[in-house]
Amino acid sequence: MSDPVTTPLVDLNADLGEGFGRWELTDDEALLSVVTSANVACGFHAGDPSTMRRVCELAAERGVVVGAQVSYRDLAGFGRRAMDVPPRELADEIAYQIGALEVFARAAGTRVGYVKPHGALYNRCVHDEAQSAAVLEGVRTAGTPLPVLGLPGSQLHEAARRVGLPVVGEAFADRAYTPEGTLVSRREPGAVVHDPDEVVKRALGMATEGTVTAVDGSTVKIEARSLCLHGDTPGAADLARRVRDELTAAGVRIGSFA
Amino acid sequence: MSDPVTTPLVDLNADLGEGFGRWELTDDEALLSVVTSANVACGFHAGDPSTMRRVCELAAERGVVVGAQVSYRDLAGFGRRAMDVPPRELADEIAYQIGALEVFARAAGTRVGYVKPHGALYNRCVHDEAQSAAVLEGVRTAGTPLPVLGLPGSQLHEAARRVGLPVVGEAFADRAYTPEGTLVSRREPGAVVHDPDEVVKRALGMATEGTVTAVDGSTVKIEARSLCLHGDTPGAADLARRVRDELTAAGVRIGSFA
Amino acid sequence: MSDPVTTPLVDLNADLGEGFGRWELTDDEALLSVVTSANVACGFHAGDPSTMRRVCELAAERGVVVGAQVSYRDLAGFGRRAMDVPPRELADEIAYQIGALEVFARAAGTRVGYVKPHGALYNRCVHDEAQSAAVLEGVRTAGTPLPVLGLPGSQLHEAARRVGLPVVGEAFADRAYTPEGTLVSRREPGAVVHDPDEVVKRALGMATEGTVTAVDGSTVKIEARSLCLHGDTPGAADLARRVRDELTAAGVRIGSFA
Amino acid sequence: MSDPVTTPLVDLNADLGEGFGRWELTDDEALLSVVTSANVACGFHAGDPSTMRRVCELAAERGVVVGAQVSYRDLAGFGRRAMDVPPRELADEIAYQIGALEVFARAAGTRVGYVKPHGALYNRCVHDEAQSAAVLEGVRTAGTPLPVLGLPGSQLHEAARRVGLPVVGEAFADRAYTPEGTLVSRREPGAVVHDPDEVVKRALGMATEGTVTAVDGSTVKIEARSLCLHGDTPGAADLARRVRDELTAAGVRIGSFA
Repeated sequence: MSDPVTTPLVDLNADLGEGFGRWELTDDEALLSVVTSANVACGFHAGDPSTMRRVCELAAERGVVVGAQVSYRDLAGFGRRAMDVPPRELADEIAYQIGALEVFARAAGTRVGYVKPHGALYNRCVHDEAQSAAVLEGVRTAGTPLPVLGLPGSQLHEAARRVGLPVVGEAFADRAYTPEGTLVSRREPGAVVHDPDEVVKRALGMATEGTVTAVDGSTVKIEARSLCLHGDTPGAADLARRVRDELTAAGVRIGSFA
Repeated sequence: MSDPVTTPLVDLNADLGEGFGRWELTDDEALLSVVTSANVACGFHAGDPSTMRRVCELAAERGVVVGAQVSYRDLAGFGRRAMDVPPRELADEIAYQIGALEVFARAAGTRVGYVKPHGALYNRCVHDEAQSAAVLEGVRTAGTPLPVLGLPGSQLHEAARRVGLPVVGEAFADRAYTPEGTLVSRREPGAVVHDPDEVVKRALGMATEGTVTAVDGSTVKIEARSLCLHGDTPGAADLARRVRDELTAAGVRIGSFA
Repeated sequence: MSDPVTTPLVDLNADLGEGFGRWELTDDEALLSVVTSANVACGFHAGDPSTMRRVCELAAERGVVVGAQVSYRDLAGFGRRAMDVPPRELADEIAYQIGALEVFARAAGTRVGYVKPHGALYNRCVHDEAQSAAVLEGVRTAGTPLPVLGLPGSQLHEAARRVGLPVVGEAFADRAYTPEGTLVSRREPGAVVHDPDEVVKRALGMATEGTVTAVDGSTVKIEARSLCLHGDTPGAADLARRVRDELTAAGVRIGSFA
Repeated sequence: MSDPVTTPLVDLNADLGEGFGRWELTDDEALLSVVTSANVACGFHAGDPSTMRRVCELAAERGVVVGAQVSYRDLAGFGRRAMDVPPRELADEIAYQIGALEVFARAAGTRVGYVKPHGALYNRCVHDEAQSAAVLEGVRTAGTPLPVLGLPGSQLHEAARRVGLPVVGEAFADRAYTPEGTLVSRREPGAVVHDPDEVVKRALGMATEGTVTAVDGSTVKIEARSLCLHGDTPGAADLARRVRDELTAAGVRIGSFA
């Protein structure tokens, strides 16, 4: 039905391994049968060493690419509290996390294939040039020119282009967009799309048309090679599976960007 | 004066980078001009990422070999409180630490050259077979067959021989020995030798004769390719420098085992 | 049907507030409508400040007594890894936890009514005299002669009697007992009773007869003023509710020991 | 020589107990013979339980008032990295710290007599209304209407006045002031006064005239009932002692504001 040459290739990414010790959060096993890129928590906002190893093993088995989901050092706040970390210190914290994950990826027969900031660091790197540069300096310190998964148009992506790191844009099928193509703040009503049918419909539009309907009803262009699926809410794994199935049914090829 | 072929080659190792954030402990700069092996704290008992990076950079500049000083996860107790960590969990914690250090070693142009357990883990691995095996499983997970620096005759060394990892024995010039050649417990009086002249004399005996005078006055054989120098007390760096100078003056060649 | 003077008064306790930040574990709301004593995690193995406050508020509303569930400092291991903490240090860590909980109990209009060690510290205090004494020294430092909830016959209870602190014995309806009346180790098969009907039956026997059937079929005497219910497994809150209902139906009066 | 009724009463405060486990920072013993108010670290940026106990004991012996030096939860950054902590969460973290310190103060025969934010939280509360209100909500949760030590004119003091908490202004003899009477940012050259003679002179001016010379040479009015002395640099304790001696020699009465 679809032509493999001209049909789009879409990556599906999700945050995984976000438990810590006794605590579990993400349904890693289920999501690893859906996504093509696993954003693995590296111990600073979540992710104990044994969980990191297990997620890497499962990912490698299933051909899912492992990415370093780097964060502020903030277990108590799950990395969701913005922190004024001095740039060199932040760079070193990022490198530390990538290095720690790298051993588990290698032990599982794979490699760390990309980097994606988590939570407050992700949000900060949309606008903050200094912290964006620090994250990338951390990647440089870690030694491999990893692709940087993030928001199209973010300072993080601007900075990555400047230092020659590949960038991969992502979109969120369950988040509302402004007419300018940016995310509606979570503090606004309607920022999150809860209706599963609507989420699937938006994912399809993003993958096949490269567009999404903004909050004012206008159609906005979305350039994203990856769709971020959430895995930390009840029913999340089922919805992720459904998004993948319907994308496939619509002729979208699913595959990692790496 | 001395014959380079037959004179002993002695390694000098010290615990380094044992500060954390605002807190400093070891005089890293001074000790890195003395030792040939740097046991770098990896963040679990001490050692923030930026300190790890700086110590690796200095070590690389001066040709000092970087080793992973792995520990229980215990910042509050400085890794000195023995913990019953389940073996697989311990192995993963060890791998995590080695991986984190590896990025800073590589960024500095060197590699992690060996592993040495710290504090309570070191002491536990003298007698505990299961935890010794777990430490080595962590080394295996990290991917490189690193030499294991430790106490001659320890379970850690026995286990390392079984799995085919190189072992390097160390001795302590500032610790009292029993007639059986084991360390006098720190809980006993006289366990630590405080007189600098005595420390230097014992270091010379260990390096040139392979012996030390035990607490009962008998002469004990000590097989050690490395001498451990302490760096966390006032005057420690000066004493370490003096030990090195007098070893050199006595014709002992100083060099890493790696 | 039952005579309020002669019927037994049984306390029901459960571990509560054992989430941390983003992570939840125990169904605090449901369990607080069942138990009469809430063992509140104080931040060392679980329990962030906001969770502590909320559990105290709910407990106070429902007349549930708040207890300090004190632990080793071990978030990564959920306090389940025994640690050789020096006695004075352990005492101070216990006092710190009690003090932190006290503010939230007071703010909710109640007080910390008892203390119960968690996990590895609980197990260690069955046999370890020094750590038991340290826990009680921590209680003394905290300033109130709190009752000590624990295993009948434990070193913790022996030590509490020596220093004049009240002791409250507890039993576990979902744990197998040896003919000697001690718990079957979790490492043995059959250590945990999974069948809800069996759990209820054992709770009834403990509360009304003061006995339980041991693993060899013999009847063992159990002296316990409190039954410990678990709240961290699926269905746990429902089972706890059922135990309470059937105890009440059997004429057992449910009430705190405090 | 001086008239006790009309001479000013000046409090001297210093940050104390800012070690953690193996690490020491402040010369607590020396400073406790100088200051009248001890800002005791409560475990979030520094301050393990045993250190908290010891500082409280020494303070009580010497009649020094114990204050809770509350901080963001940031051991790695020593509480110097501003964090966007949600208000209710911050309030609970503050209450937790005050409660923990309270047990050690009481055990030493004294009480927590005031509260002072540390590091980045202190700086943030100069301008941030929401975080200032959260800190005070934490004080309210902890249950005692504690005086709030801080910068005159800060949002923290404004907020304290609104909720009816006593405020105590402090000045820094070793910091440069702008002509407007605010502190010169540490990022500016000359922000810190290093010359001991100059520090003593400024302390005298602050205590006896209520003025200080600003960076432009103008004389600025300083309303402060407390002078903050630093204790974490070499020679700090000696300088603190000298400031106290010269204030006393000048007829200034030294005493706590509490």
